[in-house]
This record gives sequence, C-alpha cells and structure tokens, in this order.
Amino acid sequence: MSLMLDEEELDDYVPLRINPYTRAQDSRIVSFLFIKLYIAWYITCMLISRNKNCLVYFSNLENIYFSKSPANIHLGKELILVTPKINTFLMKRCQYSDGSVRLRNPNIELMDQDILYHLALGSGSHDLVEMFGDVKFVCMGGTPKRMEHFANYIMQEIGHKLPAGTTLLDITKNSYRYSMYKVGPVLSISHGMGIPSVSILLHEVIKLMYHAKVKDPIFIRIGTCGGVGYEGGTVIISEEALDEMMKPYMELMVLGKLVRRPAKLDRQLARDLKGLAHRDDPYDTVIGKTMCSNDFYEGQGRLDGAFCEFTEADKMEYLMKLQKAGVVNIEMESLCFAALTNHAGIQSAVVCVTLLDRLKGDQVLAPKEVLEEWQMRPQKLIARYITTYLQRKGRLSLEGSHGSMYVKSPRRFISEN
Amino acid sequence: MSLMLDEEELDDYVPLRINPYTRAQDSRIVSFLFIKLYIAWYITCMLISRNKNCLVYFSNLENIYFSKSPANIHLGKELILVTPKINTFLMKRCQYSDGSVRLRNPNIELMDQDILYHLALGSGSHDLVEMFGDVKFVCMGGTPKRMEHFANYIMQEIGHKLPAGTTLLDITKNSYRYSMYKVGPVLSISHGMGIPSVSILLHEVIKLMYHAKVKDPIFIRIGTCGGVGYEGGTVIISEEALDEMMKPYMELMVLGKLVRRPAKLDRQLARDLKGLAHRDDPYDTVIGKTMCSNDFYEGQGRLDGAFCEFTEADKMEYLMKLQKAGVVNIEMESLCFAALTNHAGIQSAVVCVTLLDRLKGDQVLAPKEVLEEWQMRPQKLIARYITTYLQRKGRLSLEGSHGSMYVKSPRRFISEN
Repeated sequence: MSLMLDEEELDDYVPLRINPYTRAQDSRIVSFLFIKLYIAWYITCMLISRNKNCLVYFSNLENIYFSKSPANIHLGKELILVTPKINTFLMKRCQYSDGSVRLRNPNIELMDQDILYHLALGSGSHDLVEMFGDVKFVCMGGTPKRMEHFANYIMQEIGHKLPAGTTLLDITKNSYRYSMYKVGPVLSISHGMGIPSVSILLHEVIKLMYHAKVKDPIFIRIGTCGGVGYEGGTVIISEEALDEMMKPYMELMVLGKLVRRPAKLDRQLARDLKGLAHRDDPYDTVIGKTMCSNDFYEGQGRLDGAFCEFTEADKMEYLMKLQKAGVVNIEMESLCFAALTNHAGIQSAVVCVTLLDRLKGDQVLAPKEVLEEWQMRPQKLIARYITTYLQRKGRLSLEGSHGSMYVKSPRRFISEN
Repeated sequence: MSLMLDEEELDDYVPLRINPYTRAQDSRIVSFLFIKLYIAWYITCMLISRNKNCLVYFSNLENIYFSKSPANIHLGKELILVTPKINTFLMKRCQYSDGSVRLRNPNIELMDQDILYHLALGSGSHDLVEMFGDVKFVCMGGTPKRMEHFANYIMQEIGHKLPAGTTLLDITKNSYRYSMYKVGPVLSISHGMGIPSVSILLHEVIKLMYHAKVKDPIFIRIGTCGGVGYEGGTVIISEEALDEMMKPYMELMVLGKLVRRPAKLDRQLARDLKGLAHRDDPYDTVIGKTMCSNDFYEGQGRLDGAFCEFTEADKMEYLMKLQKAGVVNIEMESLCFAALTNHAGIQSAVVCVTLLDRLKGDQVLAPKEVLEEWQMRPQKLIARYITTYLQRKGRLSLEGSHGSMYVKSPRRFISEN
C-alpha cells in the first residue's frame, strides 16, 4: 500500500468527494485527537486494501473525522483519491448491504416527512413502500407522450395485466411537472429537457427509491439525440458522458463553490444492452461517448438558432474534434443522469436514437411518422433487456399486487374537480 | 470622446460581444487595411457618439472588420466596451427600424424553410404571419397547467371573445414539449424547468416573432421561486438576474468556448409593473435581484435533496451572503430569459411568486389550494399591465381576426387520430 502517488499516477485516479457534511460537533460521529485519528485511519485503509488495488492519498491528516464504516469516512473538505476499483467499492457501500438505496444525505431520516414536491408525492401522505416497493427498472425520457407510450408498450412486452376496468394513470399528474407511469416493476417517467429538469427528477426519484425500500434499481434514460457521423435512426448506447469541454464529469455550483461528479455509466450494463441488438434489426446499434450540452442551438454548434456568431467551417471543425475524441452523439441530459446515479451508487444506462446526422445538417427534417418509428428503437432494446431479466428471475407475466394508489392522507395531493 | 477608460471606470460598463460571425472572407463585409480600418472605426464612433455618453474602448485595432451600420461592426473575437446607454442604442439596432424583431443570425433568411422543431411549427408549413402577426405579449411560465390557466384568465381580463363553438387549443400539442395558447395579442407558453429548457423555447419563439413580423414584442416570465427573507406569497419583480456566483451574465459554451451574455431586464418595465401593485393587495410586491440556479437542491443550498454535503450553518451563511448582495429570490430560468431577450433586443420582465422563505426552510409545505392562490398573484399583476397597455392603445375587447390555425401544408404537423 502506498500513501503517496506521483503526479502522473494521479491522473489515472478518479477523485471521490467524501461527504464533508458531518463535522466534529455531530454527535453521531466520534472525533479523535490527531494520533487516534491516524490509527483509526490506518485501520480503515487496511480494511479497504483487502479489496486490492488500494492506493490512498491524503493531503491533510489534521482534517479527518472517522466513523465505523468505510463509507462514512469524513475528511472535512479534503479529498481522498482512490483507484477506480476502490471508487466502485466505496460506491457500492452507498447502498445498504441488502441492496436498498442509501441516501448520501443524513438529514432525510431525521425529517418527520419528506415532500417530493415535483412528484406530488410525500413520505407522510403516501404509503411509498406499498406503492413503489416492487420497482426494479426506472426508465426516463424527455416527453410525457413518449413515456406514456413506453409504459403501454412494456406492459404488453412483459405480459403485465391490469385488473378489469382499470387503465394506467399518470401518478404525478397533480404536480404538473413530470408524468409517471408504473407497470409492475417498471417506472416510466418523463424528465423534460436539459440538466436542471432531469436533476430535480433524479433527486426526488432517488429519495423515492429510498423511502420505498427498493433494492438495486436500474435507471435507464431512453432519449433522442443528434448523431455525430451516424444517420438518423441509429440506436446509440452511451459508454460515458462528457460535458461541452469533453470533460467526463458534471460540474455544479454548491453554495457558490464548484463541485465535480464523475459522469460514469455502468459499462457492463452498456455491453449487456449492446449484446441484445439483433443482427436483423434494420438499423445500427453502437456504443460510444455522448457529449451533453446545456443548449440545443449554439451549444451544439447549430447554425439555425435565433443567434449564430460562428461560421459553418467553425461548426464543422468543432464537430470533427468531437468525433476524433470518440463522441458519437450529442444530447442534453446524459451528464447529469450519469453523475447523479453514479453518486448514488445506482446502475444506469443511456440509450438514445439519433434524429439526424449533425455532420450533414442541423434541422430535424424527417417526417413525423418516421420520427415516431425511430423513437421505438431504443424502447425495443430496453424491452428486450427487461424481459430477459424478468425471465431469468422467473417474474415474467406478473400479477400486480403492488402499484395501486395507497393514499394514507390526501392533505395536499387531492385531484381537482 | 475618450478612447480609454480607467480600470475603475470599466467596472461600470457592460461588455457587449459584437457578432464575431463574419470574418474577412465573408463577401458581405468589407475588410480594410489597418489605416483604413482606423478611419472607418473613427467614423462609426462619431456616429455612435451622437447618442451621447459615448465611451468606446478597443483592445486590438488590428482585428476590426467594418460594415455600413453600427449594428454590424465586427471585431473578430475582440470586445467593445460601451456604456449602458450605448448598449441600449446598439441593442435597439437589433430590431429593424419599424420595430420588427431582427435575428442575430444571417443564416435564417437564406434558408428555404425554418422548422421550429420543439414548437411543431415551421415557416414553410404554416402561415406564421397570419397566425402570430398580431402578437404583442409573450408570457411564459414553468408548467402547461399554469399557462393554460393564464390564457383563460387573460382572455376574461382583456375581454377577448372566441367564436361560438370554439375553445382554446394547445397550438404546439404535436411537439409534446411545450404548451402554447394564443389569446388575441397574448401568447401564453410553458417553458419547463431550468435554463436549457427555456433556452430552446426562447430561440424558437424569437425566430417565430421574426417569421411572423411581430413588432416590439414584450416577453414576460410568470414564475414561482424561493424568497430570501420574504414569506410565501410575496410577488417579486426581478430587477436583474445573477448566476450562482452572483455574476450578472449568462455563461454558455459555444463550440467549446465560453461566451458571456449580460442578463439585463428592462428596468422601466420593472418599475411600470411595480407601479401597478395595489395598496390594498393582501401581499407585498417588491423589486430586487434574482439568483438563478441550475439546480433545485444542492445549487440552492437545500438540505433535503438526495445528496447533501454541507451543514445548515454553511447553507445559512450562503443565503445571508446572497441577501447582503441584494438577492430577494431564487429560481431557475431568469438568467437565460434576461440574457437571450436582451441579446435579441426584446423588452422583458420576470415576475415570480415566492412559495416559501428560504431563510426559514427548504420544503414547500403550503397546501395545494394556498399554492394555487399564490400563483394567481403574478398573473393578476401582468393582467393589469396588459389591460392598461391595450386600453391606452384603444385595443381592449378585441374581435380576433387573427389567431386561427392557417396550415398551408400539413406535411409533418398533422394531428394524430
């Protein structure tokens, strides 16, 4: 075990920001004097090292707080740099040992009730375990229409039957923000457009998974995108998400300070999805890097926005640079989707269909019917994954005992007349 | 006229990024040698100086391209620093002299047709002048529900009558992205949550105004927000929008390079709106700075997200810092709304209602009925402004000759059966 890394070696490691929330004054954390701290820290390192490949680097030992499990090492505002292997190890620790989703926020369990404002659900007003306890797949996409369609499609594919005289209901319709449908173990939710919109949803759905005691959920984004060198209608599985500077992490401002979160997606899940592409699919299914932009027009180098302050040559130069770096498509949510699910220790994937090849144009010219057929393609791939998974678990053709609305108190979520 | 400003003086001026789109190779722009350039530039400055208060500063004279009108001065990638007065002057030049919206994108007029993809409208498929030529007010807000409600409310307030047997239609319903209603001179459109979502809408609505030959439109955002030192239910008119670092401009990445746009709102419009607050309104109406965040939870210092890596003390310190800087509310769209309308030379305002005082909590606890009454408050203020404006122009109680769907070609926008 090495305590220090060379500058060069450091480049290979992913910085993991350990929760600086808890300080010495927090009664749940035992704070030691410097020497005791050192011993405690050393033991922790030994524990971690059993997972092999362990290289731990501390910049400031005086600033460490320590509690019982490795997941709860607190370093004030210092960073601990660990290998990808260890990162995974610590990430896995974000879940309880039974696989339930663990929140990286100690405040939630201390709250009387947690109102998921943008979902129009609450831990006090709804029986979230009863409603969502059996969820395994959380599928998200931009528009309410697409996600309603996916809910009906997956219902048919997994042979899920609704009781006679019932139909699917938009569970979050009283929020007027997102649409959410539940089909047995599958949630189908619209996330709107752009990082802020998907970020609000992810915070609340991750909390929902925690309240509902869901175990090892899999999050999948089903999106649309622009291809970089790929014709309209190509299915693209993201290997990794990059920001507009081609950096593989999401930068967000927290209390006016910059925080970085690695935008990592589950590589095994991506490979499993790729493996489900059929040879006779009349379109390609590829894996590659996805550039995530905060803007549809200027940020993606489109010449057809309300403003355009660059030439076509500038645009092409930029797109070629992206292509050289391994970018195969551009969309607007993957960075946040990858970063927040990774931070919560949740397996996730992004599968999009291209609506055009950006090397050949900017405007979405395909007719409506063609666009609708294209949008089915990622849905088919996800449906193959879900049915294969449920088949393996012997859970295909479920009789839904879960999934109805169990409202304990209608205080703020009554529907309007 | 002074060519150089002291460092201190510079702080008072707003940087205006002049269109670096056109380069020497662009045939429409005459490029001069250095001396000729200097003369041309000097003449331009003289022209500008007639508008008084003129202080122009150049960092690199070798990099100037010049065309006939002041609005088309091209400086390569250099900045020209001008007084707010000049900034307004140049901004006004972004419109044609008859007040029509001018696009800062020379490509659009060269295109056969312009498909406004996220609105499901197009310059080739729809008669946009016939449909939208009479628009004066473009009102936007987060949810489709609120904007549908506003459309019905403003219809009643301005006495707009629909033909017998007709009702309002969501014009953009085939896009599944935004909802748009038209009530005589008022458009009411939902923009979703966050900057990327409102940015796509603004690009397309600004292009829509251009195609429809709308003159001097006024854009107003009707939103919800968290108050900083103001109780839930307070109406807040934004004086200026700030980013999470309290900088008064929007930063966006264009072709991997950072671009800054001043997030300026129309101060006179803000004052006019404030003047319409009634003394006997059972709530306060205030003017102040608005902080615009890219995140609802961590970015706004909430302790109740899926992740929280700071203490309550850190949060309060940050909010107090915002309050000291004159910030009265926090929301998620104003920065982009101000920056893009300002860049297009369009008068704009942001009016929000607070859903809670962030100095007292994070969760939105007010019951649904109370929240709905609160959301009416900014709508009432905007309705007073619109009715006063139309009254002054003798246009109250319009008979709508415009506003029906005039579809020339149904190619991609046919409704589904």
